[in-house]
Amino acid sequence: MYHRTLVGTQQRDQCLTTTSELDHAPFRDRFVIDDPQVAYLDGNSLGRLPKATVTRMQHVVSHEWGRALIGSWNQDWLPIARRVGDKIGGLIGAATGETLVCDSTSINLFKAAWALLQHRGSRRTIVTDAANFPTDLYVLDGLRQQVEPELRLQPLVLDHGSHTAVNSVLERVINHDTALICLSHVNYKTGYAFDLSAVTEMAHAHGTPILWDLSHSVGAVPLDLGAAQVDAAVGCTYKYLNGGPGAPAFLMVRKDWLPRLRNPIPGWFGAARPFDFGGTYEPHPGIERFAVGTPPILSLSAVEPGVDLTCEAGIVALRQRGWRLMQRFFELYDQRLQQLGFGLVTPRDRDATGSHVSLIHEDAWQITQDLIQQHRVIPDFRGPDIIRFGITPLYTLGREIEQAVAALESSVTHGTYRSYPQQRRDVT
Amino acid sequence: MYHRTLVGTQQRDQCLTTTSELDHAPFRDRFVIDDPQVAYLDGNSLGRLPKATVTRMQHVVSHEWGRALIGSWNQDWLPIARRVGDKIGGLIGAATGETLVCDSTSINLFKAAWALLQHRGSRRTIVTDAANFPTDLYVLDGLRQQVEPELRLQPLVLDHGSHTAVNSVLERVINHDTALICLSHVNYKTGYAFDLSAVTEMAHAHGTPILWDLSHSVGAVPLDLGAAQVDAAVGCTYKYLNGGPGAPAFLMVRKDWLPRLRNPIPGWFGAARPFDFGGTYEPHPGIERFAVGTPPILSLSAVEPGVDLTCEAGIVALRQRGWRLMQRFFELYDQRLQQLGFGLVTPRDRDATGSHVSLIHEDAWQITQDLIQQHRVIPDFRGPDIIRFGITPLYTLGREIEQAVAALESSVTHGTYRSYPQQRRDVT
Repeated sequence: MYHRTLVGTQQRDQCLTTTSELDHAPFRDRFVIDDPQVAYLDGNSLGRLPKATVTRMQHVVSHEWGRALIGSWNQDWLPIARRVGDKIGGLIGAATGETLVCDSTSINLFKAAWALLQHRGSRRTIVTDAANFPTDLYVLDGLRQQVEPELRLQPLVLDHGSHTAVNSVLERVINHDTALICLSHVNYKTGYAFDLSAVTEMAHAHGTPILWDLSHSVGAVPLDLGAAQVDAAVGCTYKYLNGGPGAPAFLMVRKDWLPRLRNPIPGWFGAARPFDFGGTYEPHPGIERFAVGTPPILSLSAVEPGVDLTCEAGIVALRQRGWRLMQRFFELYDQRLQQLGFGLVTPRDRDATGSHVSLIHEDAWQITQDLIQQHRVIPDFRGPDIIRFGITPLYTLGREIEQAVAALESSVTHGTYRSYPQQRRDVT
Repeated sequence: MYHRTLVGTQQRDQCLTTTSELDHAPFRDRFVIDDPQVAYLDGNSLGRLPKATVTRMQHVVSHEWGRALIGSWNQDWLPIARRVGDKIGGLIGAATGETLVCDSTSINLFKAAWALLQHRGSRRTIVTDAANFPTDLYVLDGLRQQVEPELRLQPLVLDHGSHTAVNSVLERVINHDTALICLSHVNYKTGYAFDLSAVTEMAHAHGTPILWDLSHSVGAVPLDLGAAQVDAAVGCTYKYLNGGPGAPAFLMVRKDWLPRLRNPIPGWFGAARPFDFGGTYEPHPGIERFAVGTPPILSLSAVEPGVDLTCEAGIVALRQRGWRLMQRFFELYDQRLQQLGFGLVTPRDRDATGSHVSLIHEDAWQITQDLIQQHRVIPDFRGPDIIRFGITPLYTLGREIEQAVAALESSVTHGTYRSYPQQRRDVT
């Protein structure tokens, strides 16, 4: 049965494959594509490997570590965190010296939220989205109960359908008691993108600082944190930036905040002169104060080639291409999926959307398994009922989207997904 | 002049080179040794590159990331932190399930100290060593002022000459008000090794938990944290374990503490079921609860081959060889250095010493420069006046120590170090 289904899908794919511009991702050949028959729509979970990263890693391991040894710290390694930070800053509209690559997104969120909360005065509420990525909720709740026990966390239930619906709730909730607003710009599950400037303005109108998690937008959606006067931001480098599995995250703080924000974990790499080995901590005057311990250089070095590719392609051009791919998905959804029990979760409004399409289906887990195992399509399952398709404009092709849609159609039409167990297992 | 000195040193080296067993480090050929003429005595700052790591990194980058992509999380990546943690646990006498590789030493120290301090009751003092590695002092002081403001930090001025001197001060100071004791087992500068079991027992006699930083002992000195009933420990993997620049650190917590210790940064990787994406954080029952965000896989993977080599060699045999090398250094110091203005800082008592020899000299900075630039000897300068020579029993040779001593002698006898500027620059 599996074999028959596979053949059926392949025939259908051939009919669908177009020769449109969407099948020519200009940067695709700069990535390692091991099996071009696989539709990899999971670049927002783990970005592909840039070819330049292979060369870079060989050099870092064999030359910088193996040969130059300790001498590489001053030569190659110390400048990376700021240099790559500034490149990412360029993609999100931060000024030079406002962005640093360090630690994980969770740790950076903890540091930035704690630092901003020191300026809360008598305010007591942290506002967030109940549908925020779990680690953000966990860290904020941990900070609240464990470190700042007088605070309360207010996770809002928001309708991710439109800015109007979301903003009206935020407008009603944010007030003089709001100590901090912490939101993910693009939601990991729905794909909804908050109106970053309007929400930031709303926060500032009440004197509240805002901390954005940009994990699902950086490298896919142009942002202008400077124009919006965003207070602080964090985000992943291993999704659209293709920095490698678990690659160090980034942390951005608006310059005028910097001298006033303290790092709750004042490690030696955040000190003004770490190599003086002085007994008293004096924070670095710049964004470097948010560094903590010695950075993991192999992983840190691997971030740069992916960021360079994004900068070279240009974030505006990438979004333009990404958006056309999103539209192609919506079009195919209307034509072939909506009548099969799939719901479209992601908003169709360009300003309210990131770069992934999420479909809802009651058998989402089984369908995801069928797609991966029988149709060579790699999406992401997000429980209990979402299948998520990431579009990385650097390398995603129109035909990968068509392959995914054909696979979804085939799986449901032929009911092949039903041969997979209903209970889900751990997936990342 | 430099040329003349160099030739002089080389001639002297040839006379000194012995064919003793100390010139046959049994594991040296498992490491990349680019230039065998260089005496690399800085493995306690950055360990050398194991040959197996080169192969491993190629596989991780090209196969696990490049080809298998997201599928590698369940296959290869999720188990690493615990698997390598347990291997390190074996080297320090921790039981299975007590050790995790994650984050940096500074962050792990913050998490462990915070967690233990939640059980302080009415106790208010954190006892540490005034000569502790700066990041430990900074993090503890930050924790005190910023997160637990009712606490006070008591950094003791200790005579690192002997256990008797150190223990008598600790005995006097530790009391019913001591909330936590946090010490580095081997001091980064003096090389003094605390009497781990005696000090741990002293802490417990007063009902105080103890947190050891093992950065300068793990992989060089056998430890039995289990026998000593140590509460918690942290440490580096990039020194004697040869895990790579800035490689993720480890964190050990005694099993009976685990259910009671909370992570102040409860990120998703510390949750019981991270991939359920549940809204409420439930900590992992095991040591995994001290994980935070997605781990940097490239750096994390690189830790394992170095740890494996250490396990294969056996920590007791390594210490035995390391101690003979230390003794050789002391012997040469007595014969040729003490009359030249050098002082020996490191204790000569095996039980009170780690695996590096520290010399004091008023012109230490200039002499270090001369050693590096003219004598092909790589030690470490630690301001204001210490030169530190790390001995990694896996690969350090007797003739490297002889080369270092000859270089020190030559530099001071001929005064060649005086041609270097007196002011120091940043070194790592």
